[in-house]
Amino acid sequence: MNRRQLIAGATLSALGTTVASYSSSSHGASVSNASPLQAPAKGKIPVAVLLSQGAQVIDFAGPWEVFQGCHAPSRGSTMDERMPFELFTVAPTRKEIRATGGMRIMPDYTFADAPTARVVVVPAQGGLGAYRDEAKEWLVSASKQADVTMSVCTGAFILGYAGLLDGLAATTYFKRFDEFAATFPKVKLLRGVRFVENQKISTSAGLSAGIDLAIRVVERYFGREVATTTAADLEYEGRGWMS
Amino acid sequence: MNRRQLIAGATLSALGTTVASYSSSSHGASVSNASPLQAPAKGKIPVAVLLSQGAQVIDFAGPWEVFQGCHAPSRGSTMDERMPFELFTVAPTRKEIRATGGMRIMPDYTFADAPTARVVVVPAQGGLGAYRDEAKEWLVSASKQADVTMSVCTGAFILGYAGLLDGLAATTYFKRFDEFAATFPKVKLLRGVRFVENQKISTSAGLSAGIDLAIRVVERYFGREVATTTAADLEYEGRGWMS
Repeated sequence: MNRRQLIAGATLSALGTTVASYSSSSHGASVSNASPLQAPAKGKIPVAVLLSQGAQVIDFAGPWEVFQGCHAPSRGSTMDERMPFELFTVAPTRKEIRATGGMRIMPDYTFADAPTARVVVVPAQGGLGAYRDEAKEWLVSASKQADVTMSVCTGAFILGYAGLLDGLAATTYFKRFDEFAATFPKVKLLRGVRFVENQKISTSAGLSAGIDLAIRVVERYFGREVATTTAADLEYEGRGWMS
Repeated sequence: MNRRQLIAGATLSALGTTVASYSSSSHGASVSNASPLQAPAKGKIPVAVLLSQGAQVIDFAGPWEVFQGCHAPSRGSTMDERMPFELFTVAPTRKEIRATGGMRIMPDYTFADAPTARVVVVPAQGGLGAYRDEAKEWLVSASKQADVTMSVCTGAFILGYAGLLDGLAATTYFKRFDEFAATFPKVKLLRGVRFVENQKISTSAGLSAGIDLAIRVVERYFGREVATTTAADLEYEGRGWMS
């Protein structure tokens, strides 16, 4: 099955007619039912990154780098005006987080005081269990206010538990496909795609696929040229965000 | 010029005969004069990541993810035994670091108390100026004891200032090629390659190229199969580490 057929199959699946079934990792194809996003005329686009113990480093660091590295020349003449995104982390508490490999991160905000975000990033992580209700409440509210909420890897489980994926198409890390399908029967799991975009809720495959989805969010705000420059400045060789 | 010619040209350059000149970003080719590395029979391979204010997130988070995600089945039967790398950060002081985009990182060690490392990672960063002598002293000593010291992006300038690249071939971020060449006349700058490996000192192109170089370090310790699995588990689509 070639890439075009994969996309077609996955798109059909999103429409509920058939489900493409791939047991391997993502192939660079992606599925989108999402239209461009409107950036605010002035000021920054706030991006909230949800973190807790065991957060997977590349899941949040990849999108973080994409958003902080983005330059949109149309937004002004100064470097600051041209950097449209403003990033912050949101965690259950203000305590230091140990991400994968032990990286020590200090959160910027908690659920109680996090600013309103237009983009919400949900990486894989393991520390929300004890804060399940607060996390769900924050996520449901934050995603309502946001232009786009995007999970990376098994962050899709967090969106799933919050009920944000019910009735939608989604993807997750390939090693967790069967568990995801069994856990969330109301979600149309697409296997083997790089990411799946609905208008307000997007999910990427594992780890580095979050970089592609973040570049795609840049594209939805600022177009193909800015997205291409963002990827080139990153010296990023993946092409999954383009499909 | 095709990719084979590029590699040939760059390799010749490394030998001091000619210099390939590319003004654009890396093309996935790489140059290696490095042989496999011997992992310790038991125990972890300590990886030190040098951080200071303004550290470029993907430069350290990319290699971090590669090393922490690596599994080498030959090393034992338990998950812990199979995860060969142990990561820590080293900074001028114990104070919180603001990486790019404002990410707040707490360092594990300072130059005064950092454990001996077998791999040293040097990302782009801006906070070493006031600690120039201590940083140089630590880097020179750490790289002597390490199997491999690898810079990412403009981290190559830090290796250059420490004198670690004199007489060697190296690369850096494409937007800084000319500055690098002017600053370090004793270094053979290779433009447009994904990374350059000498036996003990390696340098990668910008940002996401550090992921490729880290996967290549995995390969030097544990072979192509473990490297391939590490890249696949990351769902990493770049192929620069393979060349």
